[in-house]
Amino acid sequence: MSLDDVLARIDADLDGATDRLLELLRIPSISTDPAYKAECDRAADWLVADLASIGVKAEKRPTPGHPMVVGHVEGDGPHVLFYGHYDVQPVDPLNLWDRDPFDPAIEETPAGKVIRGRGSSDDKGQLMTFVEACRAYHEVTGKLPCRITFFFEGEEESGSPSLVPFMKENAEELKSDVALICDTGLFQSKTPSIVTMLRGLLGEQLTITGPDKDLHSGMYGGASINPIRVLSRIIAGLHDDQGRVTVPGFYDGVPELPDEIMEQWRGLNFDHAGFLGDVGLSQPAGEQDRSALEMIWSRPTCEVNGIIGGYTGEGFKTVLPSQASAKISFRLVGTQDPHAIRESFRAYVQSMLPPDCTADFHGHGASPASQMSTDHPAFEAARGALSDEWPEDAAYTGCGGSIPIAGYFKQILGTDAMLIGFAKDNDQIHSPNEKYDLESFHKGTRSWARILDALAKKA
Amino acid sequence: MSLDDVLARIDADLDGATDRLLELLRIPSISTDPAYKAECDRAADWLVADLASIGVKAEKRPTPGHPMVVGHVEGDGPHVLFYGHYDVQPVDPLNLWDRDPFDPAIEETPAGKVIRGRGSSDDKGQLMTFVEACRAYHEVTGKLPCRITFFFEGEEESGSPSLVPFMKENAEELKSDVALICDTGLFQSKTPSIVTMLRGLLGEQLTITGPDKDLHSGMYGGASINPIRVLSRIIAGLHDDQGRVTVPGFYDGVPELPDEIMEQWRGLNFDHAGFLGDVGLSQPAGEQDRSALEMIWSRPTCEVNGIIGGYTGEGFKTVLPSQASAKISFRLVGTQDPHAIRESFRAYVQSMLPPDCTADFHGHGASPASQMSTDHPAFEAARGALSDEWPEDAAYTGCGGSIPIAGYFKQILGTDAMLIGFAKDNDQIHSPNEKYDLESFHKGTRSWARILDALAKKA
Repeated sequence: MSLDDVLARIDADLDGATDRLLELLRIPSISTDPAYKAECDRAADWLVADLASIGVKAEKRPTPGHPMVVGHVEGDGPHVLFYGHYDVQPVDPLNLWDRDPFDPAIEETPAGKVIRGRGSSDDKGQLMTFVEACRAYHEVTGKLPCRITFFFEGEEESGSPSLVPFMKENAEELKSDVALICDTGLFQSKTPSIVTMLRGLLGEQLTITGPDKDLHSGMYGGASINPIRVLSRIIAGLHDDQGRVTVPGFYDGVPELPDEIMEQWRGLNFDHAGFLGDVGLSQPAGEQDRSALEMIWSRPTCEVNGIIGGYTGEGFKTVLPSQASAKISFRLVGTQDPHAIRESFRAYVQSMLPPDCTADFHGHGASPASQMSTDHPAFEAARGALSDEWPEDAAYTGCGGSIPIAGYFKQILGTDAMLIGFAKDNDQIHSPNEKYDLESFHKGTRSWARILDALAKKA
Repeated sequence: MSLDDVLARIDADLDGATDRLLELLRIPSISTDPAYKAECDRAADWLVADLASIGVKAEKRPTPGHPMVVGHVEGDGPHVLFYGHYDVQPVDPLNLWDRDPFDPAIEETPAGKVIRGRGSSDDKGQLMTFVEACRAYHEVTGKLPCRITFFFEGEEESGSPSLVPFMKENAEELKSDVALICDTGLFQSKTPSIVTMLRGLLGEQLTITGPDKDLHSGMYGGASINPIRVLSRIIAGLHDDQGRVTVPGFYDGVPELPDEIMEQWRGLNFDHAGFLGDVGLSQPAGEQDRSALEMIWSRPTCEVNGIIGGYTGEGFKTVLPSQASAKISFRLVGTQDPHAIRESFRAYVQSMLPPDCTADFHGHGASPASQMSTDHPAFEAARGALSDEWPEDAAYTGCGGSIPIAGYFKQILGTDAMLIGFAKDNDQIHSPNEKYDLESFHKGTRSWARILDALAKKA
């Protein structure tokens, strides 16, 4: 067999591959909402069955949350582990979707065909590029090109609470020569990239309580503390006039970028105006004197992801609420310590509380930033394979998102991880009308076939 | 007949009166939510039928919103108009109610029997005290004690949008010698009072838009403007360190209280500690160097009644929202001009907007404060009648709430209005578990019988 036969098989089976992905997308596996627990389970079952169809003996493995799917296949050459996640983000606001998020379809658009639906890009579509590459190998050669471990998670969109314990308990089973992670994108929607810098993530849910019941603002307005006002003052105080985060010690461990990395990033000719213009913005809103690319790849942030308090329905209600709450998250870089920042944030909030107010905190995840070493020969092998498939040469890049599993592979298993993905900037992941370009799905699958071929030859 | 016969009839028919009120409370006439439009209509029909049962020819009168109920009965002596409202507040948060808010019941409590349910105090229970007093007159004497106009509104809890146009269009029909309004309370839950100062109310719904769609905070966090942060900064900036409102010109027209009124209020021995302690607070949170009684009766406020933005469901979602919005209201005193304050508030918000953000405003009501003249002889007649019924003598007081209709009677019809009500501070109006003491209902009904008797004799 030759790589060309496998690529030809991928081309010939694109419709079949798409149908399989649509099946998986129809399962509403929203991990953060307990109402969808059974659906997460169903998505795991679907993957176990699909892996069986390409000769991989896989199992659903229980955790205190949603199950992992782990499968192994023996083979010659290096041992690679592939990671993806089968859970998806919530779909609200539902009224902004043009179709049922769990009734996916192929849509024609001016920019080409897209697969529309929740999870099409993040991460079911990406996960299936690797599975479909393996299927082509299996169908052409009767086996996979090397020894492979499949490792699918169902809690990535809700902070991966079971991941570290599971990796620790099954460390021997999950060790490999290199880990492959498909949950990132093409740089600027066209340059294939291997992500080597990832931000960490710390989440905090903060609830402020003032009076012990909702009050009438006619009777108590002026005399009672208002928790919405207290929460607003806390949020307003989290940044200074220069856009810097004020939480004490927040910038401990935030490195300045080496000149060579700055130089490499400048060479990428990032389209700052287009990046912001795509979402209706004209200028970067973060720290002064930083470019948008720095802001999202190498600078830490503090953002408010949600806020609620008082009456939020139709019309007006002159209530003074008892409580107001916000979901606040921090993106971390360098060696920032999420646990130290959590404590410092909580102390800051306590220091801002007026009399008669209390604050309750609920933590959601705390993962440090990751920085990959590109010394492992697999990095250059994969970069060559990606450059062969795409019109532009592949690049090493950063990523503003948080994929803590890359760090865990190194810390827990001692395995280097490569983050390679085919999403585009306009895929609307986490937003209404999420899509995955059919080109991403097709060339992504071909990319994995090439990478597996290169890695197998390298060994 | 004597007043005593009427009072005896009220005592004998208390169970019947209570049953009628429970019937009215079962109608979920929430005016602010369009989903309850038909229920508001049903409450108006119920009142028309009930008035007919005491010989009053009443009609449901259409408006662009919910209907008015207007009824007339001829009679000797002075012509009084009675106003109440049949609409009620929304019931959320529903999970904090101990019973279905629209399945009312009489409950035994350590402090005596209460009528529990939405609207029991505000304002259906209060409205029915007057109707039941009239019923007793009708049953004992075959007629009402004087000429009476009944005027019930169905939009009081949603800013009374149709009230002024309706009063202007029907000014001749609604004119009377004095207007009686039952939508206030006993002072400190025990002293009968006639309210002579009422705060005005201005409502604004503010929506901040940043990016044109919800974004992923991993991809855009740091670079994109966050409308929740912008809104929080706007809200935080509405008050200074001394608790004063910063909107330019806000204090224009806010008078200092005359010494004699301050003296009279001090004589009321307001229980500041108990007032705050009842709701879990220990100190007044408003302007420094003002007592809580001043804050709620004679000082203006700016409060946030609701806020929402981003993801507010279970778990966590790292979204950067496109929009965030708040419901903000101002309580007004003296001659503060609601329209000027609205414009100044909107200009303040515009001045706080960073690049790439827009603000949308939606106004909800704009009524100035009211100050009654107590020169009309009906005031002293009513004060005497109330003092006869209750253990403590009646007082002239202020009210932190906004009942703009009192000002409209004077401005539009040239009629003085008396605000007399029997609610207690712990009635939880606008909150879960609203109640009306059976004593308020019973002695309130007896109070109106005495007041009508005194007014009829005065003429």
